[in-house]
Amino acid sequence: MIKKYLLAPGPTPVPESVLLAMAQPIFHHRTPQFEALFAETAKALQGLFKTTQDVIVLASSGTGAMEAAVVNTTSPGDRVLVVNGGKFGERWGKIAAGYGLVVDEIAVEWGTAVDPAAIAKALRERPETKLVLVQASETSTTVLHQVAEIAKITRATDTLLVVDGITAVGVLDLPMDALGIDVLVTGSQKALMLPPGLAFVALSEKAWKAAAAAQQPRFYFDLKRERDNQQKHTTAWTPAISLIFGLHEALRLLFAEGLDNVFARHDRLARATRAGVRALGLELVAPTAPSPATTGLYLPAGVPGKIVGYLRDAVGVTFAGGQDRFKGKICRIAHLGYIGSFDIVTAMAALEMGIAAYGRPVTLGRGVGAAQEILLEGMPAVPAA
Amino acid sequence: MIKKYLLAPGPTPVPESVLLAMAQPIFHHRTPQFEALFAETAKALQGLFKTTQDVIVLASSGTGAMEAAVVNTTSPGDRVLVVNGGKFGERWGKIAAGYGLVVDEIAVEWGTAVDPAAIAKALRERPETKLVLVQASETSTTVLHQVAEIAKITRATDTLLVVDGITAVGVLDLPMDALGIDVLVTGSQKALMLPPGLAFVALSEKAWKAAAAAQQPRFYFDLKRERDNQQKHTTAWTPAISLIFGLHEALRLLFAEGLDNVFARHDRLARATRAGVRALGLELVAPTAPSPATTGLYLPAGVPGKIVGYLRDAVGVTFAGGQDRFKGKICRIAHLGYIGSFDIVTAMAALEMGIAAYGRPVTLGRGVGAAQEILLEGMPAVPAA
Repeated sequence: MIKKYLLAPGPTPVPESVLLAMAQPIFHHRTPQFEALFAETAKALQGLFKTTQDVIVLASSGTGAMEAAVVNTTSPGDRVLVVNGGKFGERWGKIAAGYGLVVDEIAVEWGTAVDPAAIAKALRERPETKLVLVQASETSTTVLHQVAEIAKITRATDTLLVVDGITAVGVLDLPMDALGIDVLVTGSQKALMLPPGLAFVALSEKAWKAAAAAQQPRFYFDLKRERDNQQKHTTAWTPAISLIFGLHEALRLLFAEGLDNVFARHDRLARATRAGVRALGLELVAPTAPSPATTGLYLPAGVPGKIVGYLRDAVGVTFAGGQDRFKGKICRIAHLGYIGSFDIVTAMAALEMGIAAYGRPVTLGRGVGAAQEILLEGMPAVPAA
Repeated sequence: MIKKYLLAPGPTPVPESVLLAMAQPIFHHRTPQFEALFAETAKALQGLFKTTQDVIVLASSGTGAMEAAVVNTTSPGDRVLVVNGGKFGERWGKIAAGYGLVVDEIAVEWGTAVDPAAIAKALRERPETKLVLVQASETSTTVLHQVAEIAKITRATDTLLVVDGITAVGVLDLPMDALGIDVLVTGSQKALMLPPGLAFVALSEKAWKAAAAAQQPRFYFDLKRERDNQQKHTTAWTPAISLIFGLHEALRLLFAEGLDNVFARHDRLARATRAGVRALGLELVAPTAPSPATTGLYLPAGVPGKIVGYLRDAVGVTFAGGQDRFKGKICRIAHLGYIGSFDIVTAMAALEMGIAAYGRPVTLGRGVGAAQEILLEGMPAVPAA
């Protein structure tokens, strides 16, 4: 009997009430019933993105929304600046190249965040740059980029700031309008606590102006058409109806908890995980710019990358391994979405016991205890005697 | 956001596949379809009880099956011997008294097991005693009585041994036929990993003979009628159909794991919990005869019984408190049913953090670490390099 614990950076666990919402009998989407549900959901999404713009709901993975961001704001031959500090930064470059854009790249050392000054310099040198493409949280390296600082730079230019917020929206405060993010993208299977299958993208006024002039071919991902439909509380193409049921409930849960509490929880869980990792004498992958979504750690000597598969298949605890140059070297413990204190306790205990199973020295309970010290912050006050 | 963890001695967590089985569209019970399912299920129950007798399935709580055990084996005025070492022993006495039986009682100090010699002595003194009524696991005091030893005594007499196995069947090996248990009772919401609503009772040949002569009034709980029906793969009264769907799946899970592995798991989880409790310097309620189903601990000075409600409502971790004379003094951590290593890790962490929340000294991670040392036994070997 192996109970399953999902601590990967997506998909993340789905709350029971969301599963039940998705199990509802389906109803047709061209109905007042669906339109009412969709209107409420779309409004809640604006609250999550902290924008007055429409948050377009797509039936796609997050990558679809990334592509939508690019094809709705550029024309072939345009110049864009990609921040490439990991697998998802690399993906921005691939999408851009696929649409005939001229890609300038800022290569960022894996495990570190981009220096905003490098972006400022690039834009001064090439003011014709249409887009800056960046991740808020680069999941492959567990790094948090300084989106607020980058937005201060792009706001003063004609360049659009396009942010992949797939493991950031709902994890940390990323108020789109206040910061001046021009395109913000996220997916359903992360902090939104849903299965994969939905993606979300919102455009600033500046980005919608660019969209009107953008010459890229597009049909499914034509955001103007989607916005026109969404303003009539419907979608251009068939929506993923059950996922919308779940989305409605997931947003209800997030706002019932309170966004500030949600952000504080993610921060606390991330700090607890880092404290536990450090207490075990292990090295963090991103010590200077850690993401609150996922914590990366270097595996200790004598513990192979296979530990991730072992913990997943034989023990029931799913972490993520490393990709590309991190393959076999790191382990990533995700703590975004429907994750609470005891998931972190389980994660640290599994990590400790996994190291012990590989015959390496470890003090059982030490990482857990260090995490608990931080998790105590989330314990409500005891009732009066 | 409070995730819920159920570590009470019943109801226990229900596995996902059992929940899904119970969510199946209902079908009618007077059909070949139901009869086939029920026949398979009844056969698996015999494997669980380790008996060639029919295991009767009742739509009732466990108490219903306890009553069925009494009313099918006695006549008003009969003498019975009740082992009363807790709330459930007390319940045997109440049922017996309710049916006009003459109740002799062996009062056992709470937290200890009955001395089988005391039973032998009572039966020598009153050989007309029809039943010895005992719990295998007395949940209120977290004690394990020595059923095998008691059975050795009753086997040589005309007295029937009636065992409440509600928190024992599926937790530890209790082979009914081999031991010579005459009536064995259990319920669905314990090691069988189901919601409450079903109870199970099996009678030895010796008990069925007593049933033929028993004069107690009975209708719903007439086990002879149920047996006649069950041998035709049906039930006398309307069965709790969805629970039978779940039962079929739960038994499949137990046999897929292997009963010996199931018993070893419960033993390991119980030892880990006791090790964790001891490492925190806390006192066990039943140090000499601990049940593998539930571990009781005395709350440390300065920690009120309210900690149980606090952990349940504010933290999400459900333990059981103390009943009757143990009220406010003890906490019971259950580890039966769909419980794995990381549930014990969570339980120990929550106990530690609860003590800390009440401002009492505790070394976070110490109880967890001591539990992990034992839980390591359950870690499969790592794959070859």
